[in-house]
Amino acid sequence: MARRKIIIETIGTIYTPFKKIKGMPIQPVAAEGVKGHIEIFPEYAKGLEDLEEFSHITLLYHFHEINGYNLKVKPFMDDEEHGIFATRSPKRPNAIGISTVELLNIENNILYIASTDMLNETPLIDIKPFFGIFDNRFDTRSGWLDKNSDLSGNKLLSDNRFL
Amino acid sequence: MARRKIIIETIGTIYTPFKKIKGMPIQPVAAEGVKGHIEIFPEYAKGLEDLEEFSHITLLYHFHEINGYNLKVKPFMDDEEHGIFATRSPKRPNAIGISTVELLNIENNILYIASTDMLNETPLIDIKPFFGIFDNRFDTRSGWLDKNSDLSGNKLLSDNRFL
Repeated sequence: MARRKIIIETIGTIYTPFKKIKGMPIQPVAAEGVKGHIEIFPEYAKGLEDLEEFSHITLLYHFHEINGYNLKVKPFMDDEEHGIFATRSPKRPNAIGISTVELLNIENNILYIASTDMLNETPLIDIKPFFGIFDNRFDTRSGWLDKNSDLSGNKLLSDNRFL
Repeated sequence: MARRKIIIETIGTIYTPFKKIKGMPIQPVAAEGVKGHIEIFPEYAKGLEDLEEFSHITLLYHFHEINGYNLKVKPFMDDEEHGIFATRSPKRPNAIGISTVELLNIENNILYIASTDMLNETPLIDIKPFFGIFDNRFDTRSGWLDKNSDLSGNKLLSDNRFL
């Protein structure tokens, strides 16, 4: 099949306490309690109806401070290189991130969220409701991550490697 | 913050048994055992290294047969309208889908997968490894879906409403 180009128009902006990449949490589980908010552009606000009844939402967003990509990277939680698609590294062919965060409440076009692990002023692409019955997976194998699943210490914080 | 446009270049193509939208499974859980494969364009194949050690992968892809969007939709699993962002409907401002599928094996740039719930020849945008310790969420509330969580019958199959 032919290659395609798809044009994305952002639907809002995510505001968080993280002004720079270094020291950021690298996953929502490392950002427990970290609050932020999302401003949805007013023309999309009607699309938020009934979303406040969900406890968790999955955000798709642009890694807006990342330039270019590498096909092999050393992820934050390992000392060895892996293919980019076996990692969550932001330096990927299409710089789109996904994070499931807690939804606290919604006021008009503003969503208040917790467990935010993205940079301040991150452009938002989409919001999906998290469906507990569809989205959890059990009996999973997680490759290189399985041998590095001690979540203590600083391994869950970003350094400068992807700048 | 200003609106942004982001240009996505697809990285491969997903092949499944579903040649038309009507009758497709609407979630991977409704597609148990349905096999498919992904062809990654050769220039990205190096990025697949070590991915075969993961049992599940999350695909980001383009809803390529959907035109335009609605801010209010009646999702497949309910009889009432909800805001588009409270649903997984494909008719959304940015027509990007996410599905977590089983990874069976990889041969060069071909990934063999199961639980495929997307249309044949779907353009692939990204692959993320599924991290059991990061990606599951418990004690979730799923709004309108919670009252419709009887998964039997045809409610998990698509009709023509989004054509």
